[in-house]
Amino acid sequence: MSEGAFMLLPCLTSLVYREHEGLAYLITAVLTFLLGFLLNFKKAKNTNIYIKEGLVSTGLSWIAMTIFGCLPFYFSGEIPSFIDAMFETASGLSTTGASILTDIEAMSHAALMWRSLTHFIGGMGVLVFLLAIIPSSGGSTINLMRAESPGPSVGKVVPKISMTARLLYAIYMALTALEIILLIAGGMPIFDSVCHAFGTAGTGGFGVKNDSFMSYSPYCQYVAAVFMYLFAMNFNFYSFILLKQFKKAFGMEEILVYFGITLVTVTTVTLNILPQTGSFADSFRESFFTVGSIMSTTGFSNVDFDKWPMVSRFILVVLMFSGACAGSTGGGIKVSRIHILAKTIRKSLKGYFHPNNIKKIQMDGHPIEHDVIRSVNVFFATFMAVFTLSVFLISFENLDPVTTFTSVAATINNIGPGLGLVGPTGNYAGFSVLSKLVFIFDMLAGRLELFPLLVFISPDFYKAAAGSVKTKFRKTKS
Amino acid sequence: MSEGAFMLLPCLTSLVYREHEGLAYLITAVLTFLLGFLLNFKKAKNTNIYIKEGLVSTGLSWIAMTIFGCLPFYFSGEIPSFIDAMFETASGLSTTGASILTDIEAMSHAALMWRSLTHFIGGMGVLVFLLAIIPSSGGSTINLMRAESPGPSVGKVVPKISMTARLLYAIYMALTALEIILLIAGGMPIFDSVCHAFGTAGTGGFGVKNDSFMSYSPYCQYVAAVFMYLFAMNFNFYSFILLKQFKKAFGMEEILVYFGITLVTVTTVTLNILPQTGSFADSFRESFFTVGSIMSTTGFSNVDFDKWPMVSRFILVVLMFSGACAGSTGGGIKVSRIHILAKTIRKSLKGYFHPNNIKKIQMDGHPIEHDVIRSVNVFFATFMAVFTLSVFLISFENLDPVTTFTSVAATINNIGPGLGLVGPTGNYAGFSVLSKLVFIFDMLAGRLELFPLLVFISPDFYKAAAGSVKTKFRKTKS
Repeated sequence: MSEGAFMLLPCLTSLVYREHEGLAYLITAVLTFLLGFLLNFKKAKNTNIYIKEGLVSTGLSWIAMTIFGCLPFYFSGEIPSFIDAMFETASGLSTTGASILTDIEAMSHAALMWRSLTHFIGGMGVLVFLLAIIPSSGGSTINLMRAESPGPSVGKVVPKISMTARLLYAIYMALTALEIILLIAGGMPIFDSVCHAFGTAGTGGFGVKNDSFMSYSPYCQYVAAVFMYLFAMNFNFYSFILLKQFKKAFGMEEILVYFGITLVTVTTVTLNILPQTGSFADSFRESFFTVGSIMSTTGFSNVDFDKWPMVSRFILVVLMFSGACAGSTGGGIKVSRIHILAKTIRKSLKGYFHPNNIKKIQMDGHPIEHDVIRSVNVFFATFMAVFTLSVFLISFENLDPVTTFTSVAATINNIGPGLGLVGPTGNYAGFSVLSKLVFIFDMLAGRLELFPLLVFISPDFYKAAAGSVKTKFRKTKS
Repeated sequence: MSEGAFMLLPCLTSLVYREHEGLAYLITAVLTFLLGFLLNFKKAKNTNIYIKEGLVSTGLSWIAMTIFGCLPFYFSGEIPSFIDAMFETASGLSTTGASILTDIEAMSHAALMWRSLTHFIGGMGVLVFLLAIIPSSGGSTINLMRAESPGPSVGKVVPKISMTARLLYAIYMALTALEIILLIAGGMPIFDSVCHAFGTAGTGGFGVKNDSFMSYSPYCQYVAAVFMYLFAMNFNFYSFILLKQFKKAFGMEEILVYFGITLVTVTTVTLNILPQTGSFADSFRESFFTVGSIMSTTGFSNVDFDKWPMVSRFILVVLMFSGACAGSTGGGIKVSRIHILAKTIRKSLKGYFHPNNIKKIQMDGHPIEHDVIRSVNVFFATFMAVFTLSVFLISFENLDPVTTFTSVAATINNIGPGLGLVGPTGNYAGFSVLSKLVFIFDMLAGRLELFPLLVFISPDFYKAAAGSVKTKFRKTKS
């Protein structure tokens, strides 16, 4: 029902620009809303949501949203292939920004608006949105939020979940509005500003021009860059600031590490590309924008970084994997997970020399629970396994190694552009249907941090499902 | 002292072939032996070897062996650059097989013999060799063996360590002797057979021809291939067979997984390269040999696999990382670690559906200790960290991404040839001194499974060392 409602915005866009494509959005909106409305009649008896239910319903919601969300592209005929339409929608909702379109500027305003809006919806999450607007049904809902929000340990900043969700969305919308205003102030057309702000907010990367940000003014590039950095920060930081807990906000280790990484990488890249640009101002602007774009996993580009020297390209690949902060709208493994892994390595080395003085790993002044460390380790291993298997499947395309490797890196980490054929000037149009399905899986799995999608390919899920159907059947009989 | 003694073999080779290079080996042998003899006068008061002492003495021994082992190359003038000589020796001892030589066939027989012999020494380990031949000094020595032998949990097959070490060396030498005989039987010259058997035994990869195994007969290629698979198996398997514990031997999960990987990858590669070779026999021979060579981390080649299709090349890269079995002479992350990581992922997925029925992870019928799982996780994270940092340093060469990435993969995993410029027909001669130092570190760190070398770049080591010097100083004063 929410998705149907959201589709009215591209409808409205069509009205403004007098485009006939709006009809496809109106039809899908009505269809989607009605189906949601009908499904809503069947009420669940048990409203408790444990981890299992949280994972499964999050996974199912996102798959359903991808399928319904792609219908307007398909109905309007703007993306004639259904798989391509699904790819584009999964890329939008997962805030990846990888595209199968070869000419973005030929699309209708409605389609461009819907692409960018999917970023905005996917960024903070639909279920978190529902938690914010729907009165609590009494059941435990934190596991829904946990399954949809990124990071090793999702917590509540304020005691009530609905309040936490509302606070998150308030910050999200305020920052987005501020970016729209600043972009318009820089002379960017209103339509472009709204689309780009949606794309930045969700750290997505869909734009409205074929050359992304290359032809906008340096001022607009800097505004977008700053907001890419802002949306990739842990939103708890903003919550603490709003609650006037400044000490807590500026003591967040993840934020400090995030700024440390930014400082080191922007400096290194600026110096490394200096011989290519010849000007310090250009080097810094390109470096600041691109590092922010890749680290936040947005994927806008103001330069063809595929032509950069090896050191800078490698830094970008590492940033693709480390990604944004937990609790942000960005993707990747997340800064806090990398930070925790680094701490376990340090602890292990320390343990050899002080075997009788081994302390629990601390973060933000508190010891980290054993379960969190375990989940970080499992996530890292699972991530590498899914990544490796995906690259294997994509390698059947028999493309060059760089394209093969970075196309998966750019989709599973929700960035969009990679290197080689999928670089800033390329796209994903040339891949086979099988490869596109792999990418769709990777984009959604990357956004939902693997497990809400992995459960559907786990035999244990089907065993458990079969078991519960059997129990139900037996109950009905007796 | 052992290293000095080992150098007499290339001396002898020189005598047989009447080469003047033998003198360099004789001088170094005497020098190395004498220095060892003199250092032996200073006896340790405390002969207990805890983890810390095990790591540090293993690391120091291998660094010392590399420095003394490279002297003959340098003294004889056959490798005029000291760094190059060190690279070649570290590559030999770590059983990597990466070379800075552009024309192997121009080298003296003494040098070729010494190169191959370093593989043989490094394969099973010098300290394990010492444990086998020196009567137990009473102190605990298992931590020496633990630090030098690969795998997540090094155990004793028979109660006494010296007996375990002797059993391991007996199997090692018997298999090597068998390979020499079978190669000679296939018409390979005696010198070539001995060198190749040493190179296979240590899973090293140094050969005596510029084209590695390409010009030898299919029979010889098959013999070498089979022995590469054999030396990459967990030696506990052979011990169990010798002790007539067949059920234990064939129940080893690592061995089963190892054969499973072999079956799947050899089949896939054979089918994938079939269009290139045009003949099933050639495809199978090339696939069987190359998969064995890469998985065992040996690095011999009977085909330029850099020209293979992307699927096969990617399989090779994955095999580089997964590597051989624990407790073998091979490198990489090790099959058992990958197996344990896969089990933790499976357990995690299962846990969502059966939260009240979570069992400890089992292996070979026993639950795996929590400490082993922790160490596997730490190893994996540390490995990826060292790998990433090394690629970053190598990226300053500004070579293509494939060479940059696989040169590090091929050295840290102790394979030798990678893809691109360091492929089967390339070498490591063109890298800068800094890059060669990075490779030397990676090769030794890969062979010793990171920590015996990492301790030397850990600040905690120097703090602890400074602390113990201070204590000693205080004691002397009082």
